[in-house]
Amino acid sequence: MLQIGKIVKLTVKDVRFPTSLGQHGSDAMHTDPDYSVAYVVIETDGGMKGYGLTFTVGRGTEVVVCAVKALSGFVVGKTLEEIVGDFRGFYRLLTSDGQMRWIGPEKGVIQLATAAVLNAVWDLWARAEGKSPEQLVSCIDFRYITDALTEQEALVKGKKNREQMLKEGYPAYTTSFSTPHLPPWLWSYTDTILVGLWVKHMTIVFIQCLALLCVHVKLCTDALASGWSRFKVKVGAELEDDERRCRLIRQMIGPDKTLMMDANQRWDVGEAISWVTSLAPFRPLWIEEPTSPDDILGHATISKALAPLGIGVASGEQCHNRVMFKQFLQASALQFVQIDSCRLGSVNENLSVLLMAHKFQVPVCPHAGGVGLCELVQHLILFDYISVSADLNNRMCEYVDHLHEHFTSPVVIRNAHYLPPKDPGYSCEMLESSVETHQFPGGVVWANLLAKAPE
Amino acid sequence: MLQIGKIVKLTVKDVRFPTSLGQHGSDAMHTDPDYSVAYVVIETDGGMKGYGLTFTVGRGTEVVVCAVKALSGFVVGKTLEEIVGDFRGFYRLLTSDGQMRWIGPEKGVIQLATAAVLNAVWDLWARAEGKSPEQLVSCIDFRYITDALTEQEALVKGKKNREQMLKEGYPAYTTSFSTPHLPPWLWSYTDTILVGLWVKHMTIVFIQCLALLCVHVKLCTDALASGWSRFKVKVGAELEDDERRCRLIRQMIGPDKTLMMDANQRWDVGEAISWVTSLAPFRPLWIEEPTSPDDILGHATISKALAPLGIGVASGEQCHNRVMFKQFLQASALQFVQIDSCRLGSVNENLSVLLMAHKFQVPVCPHAGGVGLCELVQHLILFDYISVSADLNNRMCEYVDHLHEHFTSPVVIRNAHYLPPKDPGYSCEMLESSVETHQFPGGVVWANLLAKAPE
Repeated sequence: MLQIGKIVKLTVKDVRFPTSLGQHGSDAMHTDPDYSVAYVVIETDGGMKGYGLTFTVGRGTEVVVCAVKALSGFVVGKTLEEIVGDFRGFYRLLTSDGQMRWIGPEKGVIQLATAAVLNAVWDLWARAEGKSPEQLVSCIDFRYITDALTEQEALVKGKKNREQMLKEGYPAYTTSFSTPHLPPWLWSYTDTILVGLWVKHMTIVFIQCLALLCVHVKLCTDALASGWSRFKVKVGAELEDDERRCRLIRQMIGPDKTLMMDANQRWDVGEAISWVTSLAPFRPLWIEEPTSPDDILGHATISKALAPLGIGVASGEQCHNRVMFKQFLQASALQFVQIDSCRLGSVNENLSVLLMAHKFQVPVCPHAGGVGLCELVQHLILFDYISVSADLNNRMCEYVDHLHEHFTSPVVIRNAHYLPPKDPGYSCEMLESSVETHQFPGGVVWANLLAKAPE
Repeated sequence: MLQIGKIVKLTVKDVRFPTSLGQHGSDAMHTDPDYSVAYVVIETDGGMKGYGLTFTVGRGTEVVVCAVKALSGFVVGKTLEEIVGDFRGFYRLLTSDGQMRWIGPEKGVIQLATAAVLNAVWDLWARAEGKSPEQLVSCIDFRYITDALTEQEALVKGKKNREQMLKEGYPAYTTSFSTPHLPPWLWSYTDTILVGLWVKHMTIVFIQCLALLCVHVKLCTDALASGWSRFKVKVGAELEDDERRCRLIRQMIGPDKTLMMDANQRWDVGEAISWVTSLAPFRPLWIEEPTSPDDILGHATISKALAPLGIGVASGEQCHNRVMFKQFLQASALQFVQIDSCRLGSVNENLSVLLMAHKFQVPVCPHAGGVGLCELVQHLILFDYISVSADLNNRMCEYVDHLHEHFTSPVVIRNAHYLPPKDPGYSCEMLESSVETHQFPGGVVWANLLAKAPE
């Protein structure tokens, strides 16, 4: 490894994009998100930089920023060699500090902040050199998960599928921006009329329906044209609307393409089962986040009820640590594990989840979208394929075509696949101009918006 | 209800007590706590005040303070009548804001902040008037728990045991400050010598052993003299030390008094079972927090393994919301439910847990100690007895004699029982002088300490 000196500075910024103005990315529970990041830059005395972030959706980002500042004392003053030389110990230093762990432990704001800080450390490390599997396992804190996975079990061998990935990339799916909060006029057409139109004027209606169904027409038409074959739709606000929308989407994409549904935690357990049963005719591969992200036993009940219908349960974007994922796997509560690069404690904790999922033979289909989530998680899912699972069956990584233009090395999607990133690092360096203009509340974008806001 | 006008102001302060200097309250995982609070005062335009707090242990309190500020916009500008007129809706406004819930949801920093804010609202309400059971149930957000408890089931009738409580009070137990980090010289006596001394010089050794075992001699001798019959000891750092200490304590308190053990999340699942099995001869009523507070299935495994030994499992002080408690109950993972007045979303969420525990017939033994936790939780456990459980079997409320002098209405303990509080409100108003001198980092206590600290 390069001797890159001591980390002498950590800065963190509250960067927000006013996405709520266009209702981009809204869902049944998050109705007006302003996609945001707590953006971290660490700097060595040799002038080398590492970039990290965690994703948020507007208000509250300042709380995560405050938590990052509270953690910065653990990073500044250390060399990269000290950190990665005992990365498990360093991880535990951040997550198990005798005072700070009280406000978690390992969950919520403080874990989001841990992710942002450690993502920057991983970026710095990745810029400095490559890593071996043994080193990777030594980054994992196995505390509380040894009943499910031991360190010995974790030392899996690399499967050498690099070449395939370089050539084809990792399969992706696209999440449509169609929200469950569409204007009521949209649904004034009856199903019969729509189906009738469908038969009569296929091409026109194809485009019209897409225009109606997707807040972003361009996104969807581009998606189909670009070879996408897996689509996710948001559900959970109104059953009748969901039925109409899902029927139409299934008709449009045809019987062979894959449809997933996402409820964003909208339901109680019994409600989830009956609601999804009503949507079963549209053959979703999975229902995502049917209820509270904390409800392991609830997810297990839902999984059991939906299994005869051929519908799996997916969750993870708000699953707060490895101990929760362990139980979801132990309880057969998930059929699809959705890791998140910014909710869990960076690469370290995600590695433990990838390895547990592999042991329990549950496919990993990462959560992405947001700001920078695609950029980060592509590294994790490529590692999963090359070094852990070597399997693509029922596996795919979420993709949303949104806000990538703010990154110095944005993801590259070709034919609905993530192409392996080529630049060194963890791909979450943002353009300086994007950071400056979107800082909250002082950047010019927000200064202008706030000046216009009513008192 | 009194018309008390509009809430026009919310202030929050970071108040810390330098308890780490004396290692007060330390345990196997929190080795140097500075007992602290995020202290909230709300004020109406009529000049009436409500006081609330959440407990923390030092570093990170500033993050909770930041989160309280982020929530303050939901409170300021509303009347008490608007809030309590739809308290379930107000609860959900705080916990399910479309942007802020991302940094929880309902867990960690943001839920601690919710507790502090709502505790102040409850204090204001309690100062204004009394409440009926129907009103109380309307404060609960049943989202995600209807598979375990419905609103109809929650409408239990008051059991009218007020008179008994007014006379005798609610039974308490005391947590010794004996930490698992005692100086090694303490253990240079062999067990044989100690037992020999015990037989020969009962009174002297009784006091000597207490002096050795408890960092606070006065606390323990006072406790025994004051009629305490239930004791909790911290374990989990070194098995041999734990065995020595538990043997001695059991000898000192005799076979009939109750001993509990607290591991503060130190172990993995298998380790917990074997460690506690080694301590079984000392007949603990429960082992508290044997592993991660998130590990429902782990606690269930431990419960099952320890049941034949007559040892229950207790947890809850870091159980972050009602959805987690629901599962702990559904999985028979806890035999003692330890609610916390500042970790859960105030009275609202604690009510749902009290009602679920009652339905599952698991006794509630609240977590207290810290700063202000005793003052707050006494209200909840009295309500539990008078209006829900009407049962004292295997029920008791934690008590630590520490930092009560900073409150305007400190708890009153008589003959090891909590006497019902008499002053109006939720008992968490602090002395102005205590708040001023202990504010971090500017108060005189911290200004002096920080001036002396090495660079």
